[in-house]
Amino acid sequence: MSLEKKDLAIGVDLGGTKLLVALISVDGKVIRELECKTSIHDADQISFTLVNAITQLIDHVNRSRLRGIGVASAGVIDSKRKKIVYANNLGLENYPIGDLLEDHFHLPVRVCNDANSAAIAEWIWGAGIGKRNLIYITVSTGIGAGIISDGKLITGIHDSAGEFGHITIVHKGEQCGCGNRGCLEQYASGTALARLANQRLKNSTSLLHDLKTGSTVTNKEIALAAEKGDPLSISLLHEVGEYLGTGVTSLIHLFNTEAIVFGGGIMNMSDFILPAVEEYVRENSITQMSRDVVISKTVLGKRAGVMGASGLFFLNEGTEPSINV
Amino acid sequence: MSLEKKDLAIGVDLGGTKLLVALISVDGKVIRELECKTSIHDADQISFTLVNAITQLIDHVNRSRLRGIGVASAGVIDSKRKKIVYANNLGLENYPIGDLLEDHFHLPVRVCNDANSAAIAEWIWGAGIGKRNLIYITVSTGIGAGIISDGKLITGIHDSAGEFGHITIVHKGEQCGCGNRGCLEQYASGTALARLANQRLKNSTSLLHDLKTGSTVTNKEIALAAEKGDPLSISLLHEVGEYLGTGVTSLIHLFNTEAIVFGGGIMNMSDFILPAVEEYVRENSITQMSRDVVISKTVLGKRAGVMGASGLFFLNEGTEPSINV
Repeated sequence: MSLEKKDLAIGVDLGGTKLLVALISVDGKVIRELECKTSIHDADQISFTLVNAITQLIDHVNRSRLRGIGVASAGVIDSKRKKIVYANNLGLENYPIGDLLEDHFHLPVRVCNDANSAAIAEWIWGAGIGKRNLIYITVSTGIGAGIISDGKLITGIHDSAGEFGHITIVHKGEQCGCGNRGCLEQYASGTALARLANQRLKNSTSLLHDLKTGSTVTNKEIALAAEKGDPLSISLLHEVGEYLGTGVTSLIHLFNTEAIVFGGGIMNMSDFILPAVEEYVRENSITQMSRDVVISKTVLGKRAGVMGASGLFFLNEGTEPSINV
Repeated sequence: MSLEKKDLAIGVDLGGTKLLVALISVDGKVIRELECKTSIHDADQISFTLVNAITQLIDHVNRSRLRGIGVASAGVIDSKRKKIVYANNLGLENYPIGDLLEDHFHLPVRVCNDANSAAIAEWIWGAGIGKRNLIYITVSTGIGAGIISDGKLITGIHDSAGEFGHITIVHKGEQCGCGNRGCLEQYASGTALARLANQRLKNSTSLLHDLKTGSTVTNKEIALAAEKGDPLSISLLHEVGEYLGTGVTSLIHLFNTEAIVFGGGIMNMSDFILPAVEEYVRENSITQMSRDVVISKTVLGKRAGVMGASGLFFLNEGTEPSINV
């Protein structure tokens, strides 16, 4: 009997501005990929784009080699019902992405949120190879985390675990949109960085005054200014790193993890942020718990989400990642 | 063939001041129990007391009914090597409790820390029956947690997960003995409560002035004063509850848990503390994540540790607790 190996899976990364779809092999090679713009608040258009993009990839391979379609999406996900429960930046609510793709392609579909999928990708093919404990932290507009503990993704009762942006680091501090006060996200997200910069800029001399093109300064401009040695920008990024370090210290104490991997939009400034995270953690955490923890930047970068989505088919759930075919 | 059911296990709870040993059945009945004083800084004496106490219990049952001996201990535990790596309040270092008991009794031995064992007990027989996600929080001299997520105890790489007392709730706040700043333990432990009371007492009228027998006020005296309606004591306990609520909110956002169970020394004041925890959590957490979370006091009380130790033999690891014999 000759059976072709099921050595491929489709990964989908559905984000607020773009859709990334890729054909990925069990050893983490991106064989083909496509990027499309996503139309916010138009579920039909999103479905059309999605089906169209996947069709283009599938047409190039023998279907018998495909394990299935893995989807990573922003927002609140119900992985059991394979639904996007709520994704603000996509304008989707109760979107049955699993049923839609299964009905169309007659392939198994698995769904998870984007921080979890990036954690899975880094775990199988990136910064976490060989480890049983890893936390992936994404820092962009907001802050989220995908947590792998003892070879298992932490999901919680409703798939909502990992809301790292909403742990309190300042008791009764800044009001957060989530209802809590003093959330990490209010001090260390991309949004917080831009807000801080605009506040501080008023009374400071800084290159940002010259670089600024709009009425307010952007994170891109902060990155540029820091590269050019602007003290205000560098000190702001150091501050963000300290806040992230505070949060990471709490994660290390709660999870006794082996690796912290940072990704997300503002990690293009990681050279300025991560040394401050590292310094804070080394100085403030319980030495026995932190001394072996590797803190690093994503290895897989923007592809972490789409790769981890396909990785949902390359994991032996509940054990260390096994990539046997 | 007639095989007697293995329906019993020995539980051991080794604490800083006392040793509790019990014979426990698979349905959580404490059949016999013994309490002894522990001799700090004397490993030989501890071993002697331990072996002696277990012998007294075992002599009353048919050995073939025993699954093994489960040990819960304060301190840093290596459950794989069955050692107490370090227990400050017992004066023990690298204490091979597993080898010792296995050599003596020729029964399987399992070891875990006391917060984890209490979590296991509440999960199988107490506040967490039927749940797959539960966090047990002990608040006494320090603060610790035993975390069960998706039917599995979170241990981390070196069995040190759950250091809930050392998550930061005040960025760059009070210096903690662990090396970190602003740790929850500095604001909400029994130690913190007594310290706060003694600070506040100086400039306040309070029943504590009359109740105080030593040079400083104790938590017992605070409990008594609160019972009698002393406003200072009640407001201090409310404050501790708010700090604990801040920490619990972070736990809910990270773990998407179903139940929070409080135990430990200062929970004799739970009537004053838990309403403040509950109020803080309801007002400040993400509603969808917290609305179904049950926050309660330990059901098993002081026996949680010893019961959970025996429970190490009544768990199907990696799944929901199964109590089949």
